[in-house]
Amino acid sequence: MDADSFRVRGLGSEEMEPYQLTATQVLEKFKDGSLTIEQYARSLLARIEKRDDAVKAWAYLNPEYVIQQAKELDAVPLEKRGPLHGVAVAVKDIMYTKDMPTEHNSPIYKGDEPKVDASAIMTLRHAGALILGKTTTTEFASTTAGPKTSNPHDATRTPGGSSSGSAAAVADFQAPIGLGTQTGGSTIRPGSFNGIYAFKPTWNAISREGLKVYSLILDTIGFFARSAEDLQLLSDIFLLEDDVPPPTNFSVKGAKFAVLKTMVWPSAGPGTIAALEAGARILKEHGAHVEEIELPPSFDKMPEWRHIVMQTEARPSFLAEYRVAKDKLAPFLVDHVENGQKISRAAQLEALDGIARLRPEIDEIAGRYDAILTPSVVDEAPVGLDFTGDAVFNAIWTALHTPVVNIPGFKGENGMPIGLSLVAPRYHDRRLLVVSEAVGNIFKSEGGWKKQIHD
Amino acid sequence: MDADSFRVRGLGSEEMEPYQLTATQVLEKFKDGSLTIEQYARSLLARIEKRDDAVKAWAYLNPEYVIQQAKELDAVPLEKRGPLHGVAVAVKDIMYTKDMPTEHNSPIYKGDEPKVDASAIMTLRHAGALILGKTTTTEFASTTAGPKTSNPHDATRTPGGSSSGSAAAVADFQAPIGLGTQTGGSTIRPGSFNGIYAFKPTWNAISREGLKVYSLILDTIGFFARSAEDLQLLSDIFLLEDDVPPPTNFSVKGAKFAVLKTMVWPSAGPGTIAALEAGARILKEHGAHVEEIELPPSFDKMPEWRHIVMQTEARPSFLAEYRVAKDKLAPFLVDHVENGQKISRAAQLEALDGIARLRPEIDEIAGRYDAILTPSVVDEAPVGLDFTGDAVFNAIWTALHTPVVNIPGFKGENGMPIGLSLVAPRYHDRRLLVVSEAVGNIFKSEGGWKKQIHD
Repeated sequence: MDADSFRVRGLGSEEMEPYQLTATQVLEKFKDGSLTIEQYARSLLARIEKRDDAVKAWAYLNPEYVIQQAKELDAVPLEKRGPLHGVAVAVKDIMYTKDMPTEHNSPIYKGDEPKVDASAIMTLRHAGALILGKTTTTEFASTTAGPKTSNPHDATRTPGGSSSGSAAAVADFQAPIGLGTQTGGSTIRPGSFNGIYAFKPTWNAISREGLKVYSLILDTIGFFARSAEDLQLLSDIFLLEDDVPPPTNFSVKGAKFAVLKTMVWPSAGPGTIAALEAGARILKEHGAHVEEIELPPSFDKMPEWRHIVMQTEARPSFLAEYRVAKDKLAPFLVDHVENGQKISRAAQLEALDGIARLRPEIDEIAGRYDAILTPSVVDEAPVGLDFTGDAVFNAIWTALHTPVVNIPGFKGENGMPIGLSLVAPRYHDRRLLVVSEAVGNIFKSEGGWKKQIHD
Repeated sequence: MDADSFRVRGLGSEEMEPYQLTATQVLEKFKDGSLTIEQYARSLLARIEKRDDAVKAWAYLNPEYVIQQAKELDAVPLEKRGPLHGVAVAVKDIMYTKDMPTEHNSPIYKGDEPKVDASAIMTLRHAGALILGKTTTTEFASTTAGPKTSNPHDATRTPGGSSSGSAAAVADFQAPIGLGTQTGGSTIRPGSFNGIYAFKPTWNAISREGLKVYSLILDTIGFFARSAEDLQLLSDIFLLEDDVPPPTNFSVKGAKFAVLKTMVWPSAGPGTIAALEAGARILKEHGAHVEEIELPPSFDKMPEWRHIVMQTEARPSFLAEYRVAKDKLAPFLVDHVENGQKISRAAQLEALDGIARLRPEIDEIAGRYDAILTPSVVDEAPVGLDFTGDAVFNAIWTALHTPVVNIPGFKGENGMPIGLSLVAPRYHDRRLLVVSEAVGNIFKSEGGWKKQIHD
């Protein structure tokens, strides 16, 4: 590959390699003819070749097939191109892709190649996306036992999970866009650990047909990107719409933010404590109204209920694998199917209905602010690849179905990235992204963590 | 095929063809060696060959492949057989089967053959099921525009839908077990129209992974059978469990039933009015306590809310097909994706949350009785194949997530079958099946409609 020699003029004065571009930036290059999709693909493949030994983000990637797709996309005339034409997308390996295997990081599905696209993949391909390959995941996106993937910023640390590969690939400039999912904290947590934007839209705003199911009422598709702008692009493609179109002139000055530590705040480490304090301070310094709030006592049972819902919904989800190959299934999933915790149906329904009652309540609370600012993680990415980290701060919002964006910008005691979450009421996704872009720009310049391209 | 010449001794004194056996009955024959799976398969295929011109229940059926599967199943030693070994199952053509096409009755998926099994199919195959073929459905199990299938009891009438083929095949003795789904009334309504048992378990008690999604919060997998016993068999395979094991000595005498006409009772035709009256009377005559109840006013908005939930959840579900081939999608699905009804997100959430609040309420009400007796349909199956009928009585229970069994037994003014629904609180599926068996036996002998095998 000779892509190393190919350079394009970036947005600033420095020269940028094509692989460094965001989706929005690369689309401009395709449109003005300064870059072909094949050149772009070769640049990404060269980047991947250079970095894969260190990061290991891919479960499946066929460079020849990528180039073949790129050539086919180059052959499409400009006027027939979709809104994502030529943009490379990294796909978590629990989503069906008709031209690649889908293995769920499970020996049960080793080499399995369902000839079907997940609904989201079908939509992305129609928009012109270049499906680059499949990215690593924990087993069925369900465990915290990491795959082989390393954090691009420190190879001794986890990139988080379960969407490990998609987050690491985007953070490491191996792809501009990554697809993930979140049942506990599998999108927002790796977003924070890798210092990139991560977006968990409102539950069921995007179809999950063709994805491995863990918990029907919790699973949510999510996105990784290196800019808030790119998340808006994806939201257009997936037809995310608020009742009221988001403001075009949103300013942090005069905006209202709630700082919410939540009932799991005792889990927060020094990095997150410092980041939340700094985030609130920076927003105030920029003229925002910032007030600390607490969740009403009705939310006290949330963590316990969320746990019950996830475990009990896993029973039907993994029954087939349990029947066919119990010995190849993670022991804790076997335990879920067998209901080893002896969770009664009454307790399951109490949890399911209890959380359902809290959803309009949190909408009402969040609706008083431009966004809620709350932790994304307990701290920096921990050392070691075995454990992908704690989802305790994310799980609340997953269960409440609200949109969440991880805003990168801070760093911990070891210089690793730490993000903060912005939360809005359900189906206020587009407004949340506008707020996220404004807040993200401020955190980027004042939060202390800088985007890094590692050699 | 020479299966016509093969006859086995039935449960009574009459001789029965193998195709006439229920799943439970045929399993006995396999076990005692009086019938091979190949003989059974040939009997079913002969029945299908004889009747297919009239009923047209199948979207895909390959007789040679059926025989091949049967031979392979015959080769498995008795001690290695699963609980459904050799039992033929008809599969609605919106469920992925790795060895057959899945076309959803949509031109978009014509000839499509995803190489993957839906979770439920994987579980059934592991239990030894003989997957006979794919049965007709309305487009994506979403419309009321019928497929080619006729009601086995009157070829001029609809078998109902959307699970048209599975219901007709079971009623016509072309398969003992049929798989359906229900988003509005797609399992219970065809059960009633065809005079067979139909079972919609508690929502999400069985995985829907690998099924076309219409509405995530409404879609439910369902079963057709010609006996309540067979539904118990399926419930074992799918690990349906109540908190309290169902009684082994349930008797209608002394049992408590609520008769519930619901807020949509004005839709009921003479056949259903008579059936509900007769059903209540017969239960009373058998010593049951029967009282008529009404839903509290909090349920008044149910029909409207249910409609809103279904329409708004269809937006993400059909976005991919809309993007790829809008012109090949039913106009009302295009309208759903485009939100032609201008349903606001606020209205969507009010409906979603409103129904969620009613679920524990109905559990509490239903929990006071052994079952609620309520209509399955507005009346007999209407004449014509274009319209699969009204789901108004079913849609309530689908949205409330309660288990429902259609009990056949009555007939309308034109001699066509009419069933009644029994409803229990969520996750009381096994108890409901025990009650259904007892009630079903009484309705069968006194309700006026007799099982018919048409030539």
